Amino acid sequence: MRISQTFSKTTKTVPGDEKAINALLLIKAGFIYKEMAGVYAYLPLGLRVIENIKTIIRDEMNKLGASELLMTSLQAKDVWQTTGRWSDDVVDIWFKSKLQNGTEVGLGWSHEEPLMAMISKYVKSYRDLPVSVYQFQTKLRNELRAKSGIMRGREFLMKDMYSFNRSQKELDDFYDRTKQAYLNVYERVGLGPYTFMTFASGGSFTQFSHEFQTETSSGEDVIYLDRTKRLAVNEEVYSDSVLAQLGLKKSELEQINAAEVGNIFNFGSVKGEQMGVYFTDDKGIRQPIYLSSYGIGVSRLMGVIAEHFNDESGLVWPEAIAPAKVYLMAIGESKVTKLADQIYNILTGNGVAVLYDDRDIRPGEKFADADLMGIPWRVVVNSESVTNDRYEIKSRSKKTSEYMKQEAMVKKLAIHG
Amino acid sequence: MRISQTFSKTTKTVPGDEKAINALLLIKAGFIYKEMAGVYAYLPLGLRVIENIKTIIRDEMNKLGASELLMTSLQAKDVWQTTGRWSDDVVDIWFKSKLQNGTEVGLGWSHEEPLMAMISKYVKSYRDLPVSVYQFQTKLRNELRAKSGIMRGREFLMKDMYSFNRSQKELDDFYDRTKQAYLNVYERVGLGPYTFMTFASGGSFTQFSHEFQTETSSGEDVIYLDRTKRLAVNEEVYSDSVLAQLGLKKSELEQINAAEVGNIFNFGSVKGEQMGVYFTDDKGIRQPIYLSSYGIGVSRLMGVIAEHFNDESGLVWPEAIAPAKVYLMAIGESKVTKLADQIYNILTGNGVAVLYDDRDIRPGEKFADADLMGIPWRVVVNSESVTNDRYEIKSRSKKTSEYMKQEAMVKKLAIHG
Repeated sequence: MRISQTFSKTTKTVPGDEKAINALLLIKAGFIYKEMAGVYAYLPLGLRVIENIKTIIRDEMNKLGASELLMTSLQAKDVWQTTGRWSDDVVDIWFKSKLQNGTEVGLGWSHEEPLMAMISKYVKSYRDLPVSVYQFQTKLRNELRAKSGIMRGREFLMKDMYSFNRSQKELDDFYDRTKQAYLNVYERVGLGPYTFMTFASGGSFTQFSHEFQTETSSGEDVIYLDRTKRLAVNEEVYSDSVLAQLGLKKSELEQINAAEVGNIFNFGSVKGEQMGVYFTDDKGIRQPIYLSSYGIGVSRLMGVIAEHFNDESGLVWPEAIAPAKVYLMAIGESKVTKLADQIYNILTGNGVAVLYDDRDIRPGEKFADADLMGIPWRVVVNSESVTNDRYEIKSRSKKTSEYMKQEAMVKKLAIHG
Repeated sequence: MRISQTFSKTTKTVPGDEKAINALLLIKAGFIYKEMAGVYAYLPLGLRVIENIKTIIRDEMNKLGASELLMTSLQAKDVWQTTGRWSDDVVDIWFKSKLQNGTEVGLGWSHEEPLMAMISKYVKSYRDLPVSVYQFQTKLRNELRAKSGIMRGREFLMKDMYSFNRSQKELDDFYDRTKQAYLNVYERVGLGPYTFMTFASGGSFTQFSHEFQTETSSGEDVIYLDRTKRLAVNEEVYSDSVLAQLGLKKSELEQINAAEVGNIFNFGSVKGEQMGVYFTDDKGIRQPIYLSSYGIGVSRLMGVIAEHFNDESGLVWPEAIAPAKVYLMAIGESKVTKLADQIYNILTGNGVAVLYDDRDIRPGEKFADADLMGIPWRVVVNSESVTNDRYEIKSRSKKTSEYMKQEAMVKKLAIHG
């Protein structure tokens, strides 16, 4: 991408009501735009990060054998009435609206009930099971306060997966495989070392749900972490009896702040019974379907990564999800820019995603934008490059530059590509 | 994809209120699921078609130099008040809701105003222009009646692009390039021969907008078509003076039914003046930004394709957007299924997208599903394949099969891949 031809603008102007570090950084770097509190548009570079995260999640979900589909944002009242969750007293974050004929409709904040209702139309027999499906869906939640940037939005992108099984055993096996897939996702987006499986409340369905919590000072949750075992307990279920049950020792736990980046839920057969979703087993007996749900807030994950990987100059994207691998800039006159054009073509020809700062602005602005945007590698083409085949290459996460000949520089960047 | 492991079910049960051919076919084939009137979920195979169409559109928009971003579904009232389009009397298809504090919000039915408001924050000088951006966005429109399946939904997927220019000339050039890009899209999805650029109402902004209309008996529009010139006039602007202006002769026009698959709109500087979006030109003078908008209903396009390409047995997808290229099935016992497994691996290894019907059901059901789903090529593995290296291969759009050896069959399918 040539910056001159991409709609991408860094800015020093941020909305006065914006307090969250992730949103402030992402707005300044030109990755997101604030439409209203808790509602953000994704500008081209921000959308690339979202798409890179989606690609990783999709890959891991497909490996589990799940099928991608897309549910609807508009939802019917009766589907939610079966579980009592249409009521604003039970679910206090609904956005609702009305059809022209007065019929109330909900805007999807979750898709458990609509998916169960849909599945009940297609799954009748044990031969139709197991099934696992997932979607990337824009969810709308009418949060009373929205102060955490894209970490807790009124509108946000979520990957939600659901598995439908014939028995608790079959469900538990899939549930355990999904735990590992989730850990793979966090590892691949760069949060692996800082993310811990955490026992949390299972609500009315089961004793525990499992959260994935990333250590970060801005996190809304408090967890008690056993760093050696890489297991934690959310304060909401933290008690002596729970620790004993889980084989954790109070003396080995650290209290830390963390942000939830995933939550998986084992409903067993409760939801199936509640909604009347049954199948006929291999003996001809009617049985409730077993359900689990598995969520990752995609935009939230991007926010947590932005909070986690930054310094005083701006963002520092992990390479796997960065909007480009290389920030290329020219410092100098026409011979230099002509060479930079060539380098741009050579790198992109080698499959390297390059953000090419071809703007006619001061070098200081280019350096500042490169740092602010947090692109993993910066390559500078200058008069030394023209005369001595000498290029400056610098990792965003290191203080010092290296100097290389063109061939070595291209090789180094293409190898990682 | 192995059908046994994919959530994909053909069905004979369709909702009683469904009348549209596109929706009936797509529901039966297991591509979509009806959530409520005008609101459809996309099941795995349906989502693949959507993604294939998106890939083609994205490619053509990128070639124009446009940048992809993602605006929000929740929209602020004040942005729409600047043009008077918040009022339900002016725009009668709003879905609206409220934040917890009582603030009204709109659900995006269009994104012109929000995009103009956003652009005004980033674009100040002639150096910041031209800019063109696009998104794939779920739009919500509170249609009074929703009877055309996915051809006119209350919730639907749209590609909308906007170009921001410095002069009418610059805008017109981009507008003309976009016309060609749109024709390329229709050509690539298989509708090229049946789709015509059509002069339509320009509303209060300009004399004409340009629609792209596909000939189909179920289309909601009536157009007057000059087949030789491949140009048409929508009945809404059809008059002697318009024909004279466009150099079309009444005697050479055919009246046909058509479905709109795209609409492009040249606002000139009107919107910029209305919303107060200005830039400073190279002489330091304040000028209104020139705007065009360009829409393709992605799900609508899928619906039109389904209406256009079907026969008495089901759907007949054009290859470029089909959810898979090959429908592979085995008829026979273990030696046959073992060979079919091998063929599946060989074809997928050659980059061919295969829907492998590995279910333990009657051959008749497999043949019926293959036709209903409309996968372009059907390959049958049977005992003849095991003993005589003989495979049946049939194009969905032809009546008769061919018989080939494995090597020739793989070569034929991989060549087109």
